[in-house]
Amino acid sequence: MGHPMCCRLLQAGHAVHVWNRTATKAQALATHGAVVHESAADALAQADIAITMLENGAVVHDVLLATEAARALPAGALVIDMSSIQPVQAQAHAQQLQAWGLRALDAPVSGGTIGAEQGTLAIMVGGDAADFDSAHPVLAALGRSTHVGPHGSGQLAKLANQMIVGGTIGLVAEALLLCQRGGADMGKVRQAISGGFADSRVLQVHGQRMVDGDFAPRARMTVQLKDLRNALSTAQSLQFDTPITTLLEQLYAQAIDHGLADLDHAGLFVELDKG
Amino acid sequence: MGHPMCCRLLQAGHAVHVWNRTATKAQALATHGAVVHESAADALAQADIAITMLENGAVVHDVLLATEAARALPAGALVIDMSSIQPVQAQAHAQQLQAWGLRALDAPVSGGTIGAEQGTLAIMVGGDAADFDSAHPVLAALGRSTHVGPHGSGQLAKLANQMIVGGTIGLVAEALLLCQRGGADMGKVRQAISGGFADSRVLQVHGQRMVDGDFAPRARMTVQLKDLRNALSTAQSLQFDTPITTLLEQLYAQAIDHGLADLDHAGLFVELDKG
Repeated sequence: MGHPMCCRLLQAGHAVHVWNRTATKAQALATHGAVVHESAADALAQADIAITMLENGAVVHDVLLATEAARALPAGALVIDMSSIQPVQAQAHAQQLQAWGLRALDAPVSGGTIGAEQGTLAIMVGGDAADFDSAHPVLAALGRSTHVGPHGSGQLAKLANQMIVGGTIGLVAEALLLCQRGGADMGKVRQAISGGFADSRVLQVHGQRMVDGDFAPRARMTVQLKDLRNALSTAQSLQFDTPITTLLEQLYAQAIDHGLADLDHAGLFVELDKG
Repeated sequence: MGHPMCCRLLQAGHAVHVWNRTATKAQALATHGAVVHESAADALAQADIAITMLENGAVVHDVLLATEAARALPAGALVIDMSSIQPVQAQAHAQQLQAWGLRALDAPVSGGTIGAEQGTLAIMVGGDAADFDSAHPVLAALGRSTHVGPHGSGQLAKLANQMIVGGTIGLVAEALLLCQRGGADMGKVRQAISGGFADSRVLQVHGQRMVDGDFAPRARMTVQLKDLRNALSTAQSLQFDTPITTLLEQLYAQAIDHGLADLDHAGLFVELDKG
């Protein structure tokens, strides 16, 4: 995701300094106009805004905080973490960055590599409203950003997004399979209910994958399960009962136990088809 | 629903003969150009195509079959039942009508009164392909029709539609509530995730009702529960396991036990908010 996002920032006229744990990934951006650095601290030294896009909260902590690389930033600089991490981690990171005289936003995204390339990412932003306003010119090059609440709220919205996507995949699969078992044509049913109240991006995209039997991974079952587990652990810490997500976590886990780990998350269809 | 559908047929230039168990309902269509009859058999006597839109399968059976009113139709006439009934009932009705030398389609709809008025209903059609083709000019005045399989398949597709709608309401409610519990602004979260993979008609319409706390009934909780129970009983007869719909049936039933029967089905939000 970092590569196309960086290209969009360069195209929008921003001066971009890059660093990556894998040097070749950063180097590949030099031809697009980015200045490549050999350490995170070097890349950050002159920045008004720092953007991170990393695998999970532990990696963000390692790269920015444990190494104290973020302290290389000029006082008052804004750190926008666009990684998908747990809300409590985002809150803790913001607290540490503020203690160092920096500002922080959590800004995870939805829309995948295609959204990153086209600058159409949905960006869910948590943090102070004034910081959101100052980030807006940069985020506008990447997609449509919405300020949803205080630190950690962007990550909450991302979890909500993943809960809805993973659950809707299960619903569409169960409904299409019922039709198939009863003798209807699943592809025709998908068409017939499109445009009505049952319509969704999942019905359009993942529903079509089910009809085609195409479970080549875009987002893997394992990633969907990780997202649902993050949602459940967040719900638990808030003492909020989530019966539907609890069931979906069980179904994805069961599918993975049955050898479907490397399928696209639409592959929950294959598991439900055993029922 | 019958009233606006009849008006659309008249506007499209069809000669329409009407009958209703409640005479005033039929009478209201006279000013729009319909010929009102005092019995179902009278209304059917000259028809090429008969359309029924009734409360459930038992009522369709009473009106058309138990009374033998359908036998008043000319030989080879086509009966299009647009009521939402159980797939097994639709199959049984088709069998009886065929035994009387008539043709039959099940063609339930989604889209509500607004869809009926605007002629934008999603019409899910089960039956023979040739009968679907001959029905098309009439159905085109009412909405977008799709032939999904043999007799009963239209009703299967309608159940699939209701399973997805009822389930997506639960998912959106649970996800928005998690965000609210964590301190995010639900309305902003709904906006932020719109347009991404979590987007759906339910997120747009019912999600907004949740944000607004507007649970005035359009489709009631009790109707949603009835639909889910029909889906479960159909799944059971096909020996197909539907874990997600099974959970949703429990949640809607629990909500109704807790006094939420007369809310809109988006009111599942109120039940999940107790968790």
